[in-house]
Formats: sequence, structure tokens, C-alpha cells
Amino acid sequence: MPRIKLIIEYDGGYYHGFQSQENAATIQTEIEKQVLRLTGEAIRIMAAGRTDAGVHAHGQVVAFDTQSTIPAEKWAKALNTFLPEDIRVLTSCQVSPIFHPQFDALRKQYGYYIYRQKPGASFYRRYALCMTEKLDIGRMEQAAQNFEGTYNFKSFCARGSSVKTYRRTVFQCIGHESGPLWRLTIEANGFLYNMVRIIVGTLLEVGRGKIKPDDIIPIIISQDRTRAGPTVPPQGLHLLRVTYPPEFEIEPGS
Amino acid sequence: MPRIKLIIEYDGGYYHGFQSQENAATIQTEIEKQVLRLTGEAIRIMAAGRTDAGVHAHGQVVAFDTQSTIPAEKWAKALNTFLPEDIRVLTSCQVSPIFHPQFDALRKQYGYYIYRQKPGASFYRRYALCMTEKLDIGRMEQAAQNFEGTYNFKSFCARGSSVKTYRRTVFQCIGHESGPLWRLTIEANGFLYNMVRIIVGTLLEVGRGKIKPDDIIPIIISQDRTRAGPTVPPQGLHLLRVTYPPEFEIEPGS
Repeated sequence: MPRIKLIIEYDGGYYHGFQSQENAATIQTEIEKQVLRLTGEAIRIMAAGRTDAGVHAHGQVVAFDTQSTIPAEKWAKALNTFLPEDIRVLTSCQVSPIFHPQFDALRKQYGYYIYRQKPGASFYRRYALCMTEKLDIGRMEQAAQNFEGTYNFKSFCARGSSVKTYRRTVFQCIGHESGPLWRLTIEANGFLYNMVRIIVGTLLEVGRGKIKPDDIIPIIISQDRTRAGPTVPPQGLHLLRVTYPPEFEIEPGS
Repeated sequence: MPRIKLIIEYDGGYYHGFQSQENAATIQTEIEKQVLRLTGEAIRIMAAGRTDAGVHAHGQVVAFDTQSTIPAEKWAKALNTFLPEDIRVLTSCQVSPIFHPQFDALRKQYGYYIYRQKPGASFYRRYALCMTEKLDIGRMEQAAQNFEGTYNFKSFCARGSSVKTYRRTVFQCIGHESGPLWRLTIEANGFLYNMVRIIVGTLLEVGRGKIKPDDIIPIIISQDRTRAGPTVPPQGLHLLRVTYPPEFEIEPGS
């Protein structure tokens, strides 16, 4: 049965996260509902990552199997006709039937936005953490680089989440300031639960002078969640991009 | 009785416009409700312009009279404590008791945003007109300049709206492209009902090649609404700034 890969974006502000839940609108439910409508098939979609309520995606990747005769590349348009306007399929293609959007992902890239002035906050409050507190951005950006590398990131994982290993490789962790907006871009081979939000919470403590940039590696090595900063709210978090091996990036036969 | 002037911003996407309506959330109702809560006074606020449902404001100006002892400059913080997060008071000050935000306005500036690519549209759809249609932006910007001047703008006024005179002076009408975002900035001594949205609808017809930049002045002079373009949707419209004579810009005695 052909497997279809979709790259989707969504404004997560109005959904109870990605994953299906009873009696709550989720991204997964909305997409599965429209596949049912188009094909009569009650399919289950797989996703690169199950984003939390309020988290946004610009390049989430999902896949599902279908016996429908809809050509793979027409799925984007077909779904967009019926999906809510805050969920958009950017591209659709056929992919190997062994492709899994989560397990085959080589890298995921997230952005976390902080909006740092009063005027305009009404418009950014659903897409960024809005705060006017004074922060030493230079030190935050210096500290951010210390997250790059392969470590046990248990200090940056929500307590109570079960996982086989806390070891992850962070390829890039970099801050960028653009007017009142500051963005942390972080790319890794995988993320622990709340990892980006705890990293940002820790960088804010650096910005406030409570943690020094040189403290980051000792905090990582301690494997002690209490030494890292608090978890920042979800609305500033954006799943930007998921990277796969080349064989899963290209439609077979194309 | 002291008159307080507020500069406010709001995300209009969740309100039924500025003006009070029975059984509908409006900007006016939200502010009056919070003044009542703070002072016990059932006041009426006056505004520079009554924005329609879905229209946003970055610098709306409102005023009201109060016998409260709250210092004028503390009103911003006091109101922000209780107002919904998508309505923010940017500044508050005392103003002459003869000040009226609508009648004393010398200039109002609006922006209208068009977002012109598929990726990202989920995030811009409440703040811009999202369209991927091919448009000749150069010709649109050339046409825009022809709106500058003092004219009878009846061709650019919603039919059925009663007004003493259709004569308005447009000081500036200029397009600006920034990546996938195009903004028309228009400043005038006043606007007719739907004037900005009909001007943008007409500029889109220029972008499609259906109207020429040189047709703009003849369309204005015709005073015929049917010769102008359609009215574009409200969500792209942003009230940016209102300018007053210097005596109303400064807090008396400060």
C-alpha cells in the first residue's frame, strides 16, 4: 500500500497539541478526519514529533498509508481544501513504505522566539514569549553555544518522562537578535521532552545574571534537572525542519 | 473632570470591531468594563476611529472623563492588569478636557498587509491578506502614488455610507515589499468608510493588469464606486498611528 509523506505547517495556538485526544481538537485528528472524508479510509498518521498544545510547526513531517488513487503530489491540494486554514499541507509525495517520520529523522530543528518590547506584544503573544525584563543577550548567546555537542541531557528533560537514553547530539544552538525579536535556533538528532523549553529557561537565567555561560557544561554533566532553569511556555516554540536521509527526501521513481 | 487619553493596540481578530454592540465582545466594551471595575464609573470612551471586526490597531487613541484619583500615567498599567492580553494600553496621560480623539485628529495612518507565499500563511492569515496570485508589484506601487492629493474620494467609499463630504487629503500612499510581505502605508487627514480596503482592492486590479496606474486619477474623478476595485477583507488592515496638534500630544502641565 503506498505511503504518503506530507510536510505541514500549523498555528498550534488553537489546538490541544499534535496527538489525538478524546473531545479535543488536535492536528492529528484534523488530518485523519480529512483523509477519511477524501478516501473513506480510517487511517492513522505517524509524525516526526508530537508537538504540545500551543506549539507551532513550519515543517512538521507526517506519513500514512492509503489505497486511494489520489496521485501522491495531489494530496497537498486535496487536504488543504478541507483542512482548517491554520493547518496547511506544504508538499506531498510518495515515500518508501518503510519510512517512519520519527524513527528515520536524522535532525530536527526548533526555533524559540522571545519578543522583548511592549508595543506589538498583542500580536506576538501567541507566537513568542513576550517579556520586557532586561536581559544580557550577549551572555545568553555565549551560553547557547555550550549546548552544542553530544551529552546526556537529563538535566534538560522534564521529570517523569520515560526514555531509553538521555544522550543526544546538539549540532547547533545559536541565538539571533532581530529588532525586538530574539530567536534561539537549535538543531539536534533528537530532543528529550521539554528539552528546548528548559534550555531557553536556563538561557533566561543566564540573561538575568543568575547562571554564568561557563556554568552550562557543569549543569549538563550534573544530570540534575533542579540545576537547570524553569520550563518556558509553549507558545514561543516552533518546529522548523526535520531532515531525513536522502532516500526519504525524494519521491521513489522521480 | 480630568480627561484621560490612552494610546492602545489590539489584535482585532477576536473582536466584533471597536464599537460597543449588544452580546458581542468589542474593544470599547472591554475597556469600559475595566474602567467600571477600577473606578465604579460607567464611562463612555471616545475613539479616533471605529475599526471594523478583524481590523487591528497599533496606535488607536481613545479618551474618557473620570473623577478617579488614579494618576493619569498609572492608567496604562492599571488597565493592562485586567484587560485581555490582546488589548494593551501603551501609554496614558491627562489631556485637555476639550480633546476629542476623532475630531481633533490631523492625520491617521493605516497599513494594509498582503502575504504572498504559501509557507507561513498559517501564521499570517489573521494579520494579512494571504494570496499567491502573481502580481506586478512595481505597477501597484506606481499606481499607489496617484492616490496622493486632495480629491473627492467617492469612488473609494462603501456605498450607502452617509458623510458630509467625500473630500479627503491623502498625504502619503506608498507600497513597500519585504520578502513575502507587501505593505501599503497610507496617511490622510481622514478616511471614508472602507476607503483603504477599496484602494487596496483597486491596486490588486493594477497588479493583475486589469487597471493601469494612469487609470487611477480618472477613476477618482469619476466619483463612481463601480469603477474602483473590490473591497479587500478586514484582517490585513492595521491602524498604525493618529497625529494631533501639539497641544493634545503633551500632557498639560508636563
